[in-house]
Amino acid sequence: MPKVKDEGLAGKGKDSIEWARAHMPVLSEIARRFLKERPLDGLRIAASMHVTKETAVLMLALRDGGARIFLSPSNPLSTQDDVAAALAEEGIEVYAWRGMSESEYFWAIEECLKADPDFTMDDGGDLTVMAHEKGYAERIAGGTEETTTGVLRLMALERDGKLRYPVIAVNNAETKRNFDNVYGTGQSTIDGILRATNIMIAGKWFVVAGYGYVGRGIANRARGMGAKVIVTEVDPIRALMAAMDGFIVMPMREAAKLGDIFVTATGNSGVIKAEHVSSMKDGAILANAGHFDVEVSVKDLELMSLAKRDLRENLREYLLPNGKRVYLLAEGRLVNLVAAEGHPSEVMDMSFANQALSIEYLVKERGKLPAKVIPVPRWIDSEVARIKLRSMGIEIDSLTKEQEEYLRSWRI
Amino acid sequence: MPKVKDEGLAGKGKDSIEWARAHMPVLSEIARRFLKERPLDGLRIAASMHVTKETAVLMLALRDGGARIFLSPSNPLSTQDDVAAALAEEGIEVYAWRGMSESEYFWAIEECLKADPDFTMDDGGDLTVMAHEKGYAERIAGGTEETTTGVLRLMALERDGKLRYPVIAVNNAETKRNFDNVYGTGQSTIDGILRATNIMIAGKWFVVAGYGYVGRGIANRARGMGAKVIVTEVDPIRALMAAMDGFIVMPMREAAKLGDIFVTATGNSGVIKAEHVSSMKDGAILANAGHFDVEVSVKDLELMSLAKRDLRENLREYLLPNGKRVYLLAEGRLVNLVAAEGHPSEVMDMSFANQALSIEYLVKERGKLPAKVIPVPRWIDSEVARIKLRSMGIEIDSLTKEQEEYLRSWRI
Amino acid sequence: MPKVKDEGLAGKGKDSIEWARAHMPVLSEIARRFLKERPLDGLRIAASMHVTKETAVLMLALRDGGARIFLSPSNPLSTQDDVAAALAEEGIEVYAWRGMSESEYFWAIEECLKADPDFTMDDGGDLTVMAHEKGYAERIAGGTEETTTGVLRLMALERDGKLRYPVIAVNNAETKRNFDNVYGTGQSTIDGILRATNIMIAGKWFVVAGYGYVGRGIANRARGMGAKVIVTEVDPIRALMAAMDGFIVMPMREAAKLGDIFVTATGNSGVIKAEHVSSMKDGAILANAGHFDVEVSVKDLELMSLAKRDLRENLREYLLPNGKRVYLLAEGRLVNLVAAEGHPSEVMDMSFANQALSIEYLVKERGKLPAKVIPVPRWIDSEVARIKLRSMGIEIDSLTKEQEEYLRSWRI
Amino acid sequence: MPKVKDEGLAGKGKDSIEWARAHMPVLSEIARRFLKERPLDGLRIAASMHVTKETAVLMLALRDGGARIFLSPSNPLSTQDDVAAALAEEGIEVYAWRGMSESEYFWAIEECLKADPDFTMDDGGDLTVMAHEKGYAERIAGGTEETTTGVLRLMALERDGKLRYPVIAVNNAETKRNFDNVYGTGQSTIDGILRATNIMIAGKWFVVAGYGYVGRGIANRARGMGAKVIVTEVDPIRALMAAMDGFIVMPMREAAKLGDIFVTATGNSGVIKAEHVSSMKDGAILANAGHFDVEVSVKDLELMSLAKRDLRENLREYLLPNGKRVYLLAEGRLVNLVAAEGHPSEVMDMSFANQALSIEYLVKERGKLPAKVIPVPRWIDSEVARIKLRSMGIEIDSLTKEQEEYLRSWRI
Repeated sequence: MPKVKDEGLAGKGKDSIEWARAHMPVLSEIARRFLKERPLDGLRIAASMHVTKETAVLMLALRDGGARIFLSPSNPLSTQDDVAAALAEEGIEVYAWRGMSESEYFWAIEECLKADPDFTMDDGGDLTVMAHEKGYAERIAGGTEETTTGVLRLMALERDGKLRYPVIAVNNAETKRNFDNVYGTGQSTIDGILRATNIMIAGKWFVVAGYGYVGRGIANRARGMGAKVIVTEVDPIRALMAAMDGFIVMPMREAAKLGDIFVTATGNSGVIKAEHVSSMKDGAILANAGHFDVEVSVKDLELMSLAKRDLRENLREYLLPNGKRVYLLAEGRLVNLVAAEGHPSEVMDMSFANQALSIEYLVKERGKLPAKVIPVPRWIDSEVARIKLRSMGIEIDSLTKEQEEYLRSWRI
Repeated sequence: MPKVKDEGLAGKGKDSIEWARAHMPVLSEIARRFLKERPLDGLRIAASMHVTKETAVLMLALRDGGARIFLSPSNPLSTQDDVAAALAEEGIEVYAWRGMSESEYFWAIEECLKADPDFTMDDGGDLTVMAHEKGYAERIAGGTEETTTGVLRLMALERDGKLRYPVIAVNNAETKRNFDNVYGTGQSTIDGILRATNIMIAGKWFVVAGYGYVGRGIANRARGMGAKVIVTEVDPIRALMAAMDGFIVMPMREAAKLGDIFVTATGNSGVIKAEHVSSMKDGAILANAGHFDVEVSVKDLELMSLAKRDLRENLREYLLPNGKRVYLLAEGRLVNLVAAEGHPSEVMDMSFANQALSIEYLVKERGKLPAKVIPVPRWIDSEVARIKLRSMGIEIDSLTKEQEEYLRSWRI
Repeated sequence: MPKVKDEGLAGKGKDSIEWARAHMPVLSEIARRFLKERPLDGLRIAASMHVTKETAVLMLALRDGGARIFLSPSNPLSTQDDVAAALAEEGIEVYAWRGMSESEYFWAIEECLKADPDFTMDDGGDLTVMAHEKGYAERIAGGTEETTTGVLRLMALERDGKLRYPVIAVNNAETKRNFDNVYGTGQSTIDGILRATNIMIAGKWFVVAGYGYVGRGIANRARGMGAKVIVTEVDPIRALMAAMDGFIVMPMREAAKLGDIFVTATGNSGVIKAEHVSSMKDGAILANAGHFDVEVSVKDLELMSLAKRDLRENLREYLLPNGKRVYLLAEGRLVNLVAAEGHPSEVMDMSFANQALSIEYLVKERGKLPAKVIPVPRWIDSEVARIKLRSMGIEIDSLTKEQEEYLRSWRI
Repeated sequence: MPKVKDEGLAGKGKDSIEWARAHMPVLSEIARRFLKERPLDGLRIAASMHVTKETAVLMLALRDGGARIFLSPSNPLSTQDDVAAALAEEGIEVYAWRGMSESEYFWAIEECLKADPDFTMDDGGDLTVMAHEKGYAERIAGGTEETTTGVLRLMALERDGKLRYPVIAVNNAETKRNFDNVYGTGQSTIDGILRATNIMIAGKWFVVAGYGYVGRGIANRARGMGAKVIVTEVDPIRALMAAMDGFIVMPMREAAKLGDIFVTATGNSGVIKAEHVSSMKDGAILANAGHFDVEVSVKDLELMSLAKRDLRENLREYLLPNGKRVYLLAEGRLVNLVAAEGHPSEVMDMSFANQALSIEYLVKERGKLPAKVIPVPRWIDSEVARIKLRSMGIEIDSLTKEQEEYLRSWRI
């Protein structure tokens, strides 16, 4: 049985969804077409997504396209309960509330899989992996995956020869990865830190672990707020790029001693561990912007601290044996989703337009695609950018015939 | 009778104040000295300040110095009720709750004046002006004023020959105006806009009205978040500075057509009026970062709109006759204080250290200062900066004897 | 017969090369190894490269590796005559002087091809294309190409089924394209504009045509100097990225009316034509940062103008029929190479380390590689970054065994 | 007898002056008025200014106003010989060539004083101080001073009770100090470093000594070019401002170990001395942007080094006893003027418009002003900004009557 926290919140949720939709012109245009063309008629989709106002706009677009939707969260803490209630009222089958236990979280995902879906839509890979581990994958025709973390997991699954159906790596679309991961996480991570702490960023040492798409976005926004930004990396090329971008690059072991604020964005585990925490300054603040809550080792914090208490919402103080205190935001989970509201609608517009068009593509190509992690077709990417620019009132140049010819030539 | 919203919130308020104090090392050091030296013993202070966690740290420092404090808000919407409760429990006489009516607001200020204060501490000038208009000024020995707006009002009062006691323009201290107004308002205005709207700032047209200390701070932070920033000004020198800083300068009448987000920071009234609103794009967002709620003409909005509704907290939609909608944040009041938590503690640390030391200076110089708006003594300014740097672990150079001599010389 | 402008300049050229080498630690380390291992012993290399102090360090490294070098320029205006003289003295066979005519330029390239080279090293594609058009290609074992423009030409050649030997696209190495094209051209383009004009950049409208690697670098540096930056593009995804990076995006036809300074960086032709020039402001400045002098249509300028004169070195004034004047820098050729000294050594260090290691790779794999445009092997890329970081004194993290394992796993 | 290097350079000088004038619209407008009104008719002006193309535009404007001009340089290395020749041809009495000895430099200044001037126009204070030391001051009616350094010297002279005539501190005009010192020196210092070294700035540690107007400008431009910027200061308030602006603040003794590039901008002497140089990295680059060549102690460098040589123009290598090499730019003199061309015309336009209007003001108020360092009248400042904005095509708002009234009011 679908389940949300409080159906009475539906009204507030609807206002919230309407506000999001007003800032998602690309997805709105797709939704209008879906309503007319009904390309998903009769299909079932199992989704594991952060249940936010932007996800709601996507779910309703898929419904308008004819699909029946089963929605579970992709993080126990990221559900907006008013939105969940509004979706339930709109006929989406929602299994989500903020503050689920781990077992409730996996229960919710499995409920969606039990609904016999044609397609999966995943954020982080938990749904897809469970589909494969628990035998649901055989009857599924295809899926999409939203995040870097999820794509890496599914590529590992593919490498192990176990992937059973085609999954479109929505994350890797240029109009997703170059925007959502960079500008979306950049802004919303700063937002989450401010809501959780209200501290001054200007003049602080701000350590960003990882200089991928997400890390780059955060580092730039932190600098834009006046911080002195340190980057840690394991990849020499990315490290060099950070250095040339004017950031200070050093190993985490050195950064740990300097930092006032730490944000992890690596897609890896154990980036900040006991050995680092021990050398931190009194008052250091730790946050994570990567998909899983393993980048800052919460386990290490729990083991090493003498006491803990919650000082503000999403702000937990740990007292260390050396007398110092460190502060963990949002329990080490995605700080932008837990302490703030996740990415702004404008950027989710692009990511989710890719989602909607990828599902439509999976339907059209049903049975023809290999059981691999496959890229978003280039035309989808360009189409999303084109509609977005138009919605922003931005016109661009186009190639003249002479220019197209010039680009094709190689003669002197 | 002192009055707060709910005494039961005191516990939460205390946590909040503790968090603020941990980020206010300068004021904390002064408070420790005050507790030992008791420079304010037996004195009464009437204050009209935003009742936030940072103000609480100041009030408690003054109490530790021996003063009895009567505290009213300086804006009907900016009180943090948990902090007010905590202060009440600590013995501060508080007349403040969030969402006061205008008459309650002025009642609260007058209650503080009725307490027969020796000194006033003001934010915006309402307390000081009322003291003069209602005959309390005669028995008051001095005061301080926190804001640009307040200082301008008191200078007008002085020009009219009506100022009755010396008021220290804390706002004009370098360690106040160059920090609080620039970095504090810069960050917290962005914070307020994000909390109220969760919109994307990158790629948006962001219009800042006014390029004084506050406007400059906001323009820089907006750019740091990826916005295309337009500045409007009435002063040619400031306008030119904005242009050379890489901002686009134009009259509001032109900016109105382009802007996605508008923030006023002029200290003036009627900066955004009906004529501007009429030409705005559908979805335009209006916010104010100046002291009074007159910079965006709320009256014009109310008069011209066909309907209004609240879509999110602090986000009011106005439907215009031309079918477009504009969104007013925080009812046109200080967006950083109403929709977020005001300036970060770190920067209030400096402003309020100036406040505490200025009050101490007024006590020492009681009876010797003219009834004028007077500057913060330079040594206070330097002292605040010096303690702040030390608390940040920053060491600086000092002049050698040879260098001091060099600076004094004029020979070839 | 090899030919330079003035052999007497060799001394000055050597100082210049020494200064460059001091800032090229990666290439220097490779040169030291080459001298010991002599991997290029007995081989002949025909190169068409900008004859600058950095190229000299590369040529001498190849010579130290055992090769005999025949060097022609890759642009008639970019040769540094003192460097050419120094190289001649060091035994490199140089056919280059600044200000060659077009026929001299192609003569120089063909002289190098006549030397029966084993490998070609090209910058822009003129050498490789001539090798194919004039029948030298059959006896050549492989080549490298330095630029975006050259790679595009050779891919067109490959598409037409005419490429006869493997060419490594050095341009596409991450340690080349993400650094040289972005940071190198970014800085040196600003440098070239300043040397040619000495105008103020702050407060100006600065139009960048193209938002690829090069365009992005220029746009960022122009903003860093205080300009209001406009970007024009033909690709919707890049255009959107520019917009989200805070730049103003519009078609050239609109930008033409606003711009004070224009820089083309598209790899295409006819980006700024008569129709644009006609609508420009009096005093507009035109520069090109793309490989060929066709991006700003010099032909159009010549045809439409009533008069022209040279006001400063590299600054030509054109008087238009409408009475306005526009200024063309460096005859529309690469402004960073003609009006300044090209990329800084530090960044050429990385590009040319890729060149040296790619030539060594071609030698080792001789006969085994397909006649295609092929990428730089990933290990070369990483190795270049690693040495560079070490030379900058930057240490980075490395993955722990647990982390490597975590990255391989996909389970929940 | 007036003297320049080579009268044959006058043609080139005229082109150069014409280019400058085209970018100096405010001064050009004043010159047109001067030519009509002849406010300086019959007066003699002795000037000690950097003899650049922009100064030439000012001198010719003063001449158009009716004055007879005697011009000496304000730095032995900053004269542009072609400009000097052009001015001589135009009837200005010029005593200036690049590379004067110290005694020639002071001879030139005294020649101008011997011409019995009514007014002095100074840059750095050498002329004014000599006028006072050698007894010329008595017959002089007033003067102007262009720089921070000069104003500080003249204030010291005034403090010592020795100033004999009123000197207008042109430097302190807002339209001078906030523009010329910040944006002008910021850009031209970067320009000078690039021309002298062609090194990469991105990724480098860039140390700026002093965070006054000039230091702030340089620090911002260095950051804009991708450097990691360190600031050193002696003033705690400025140090704190640098920290909040995101710069790294530390004492020079620590910065010396880290820096790749050092620029002094303090107005003081001995900022970089032997003790600092000894701890620098091999290859460190030293430059000065302050008025006198005493900020980097050239004397210390000369004393401590084992050998020196010139590697490029304006780039001198010093070999230290520890085997390391440091590089001094432009002999420690103003790097922007010696290695590049000084401030861009656009910003000198404003400074020199203040000069021209200040001289006119001195003429009008002759005999009425006290023998003090006096500020530029506020109306001149605003007027300069207003004309500048107009020339840039920028329109701004003006206060409505209601707004003016609002600003005058203090009531609740």
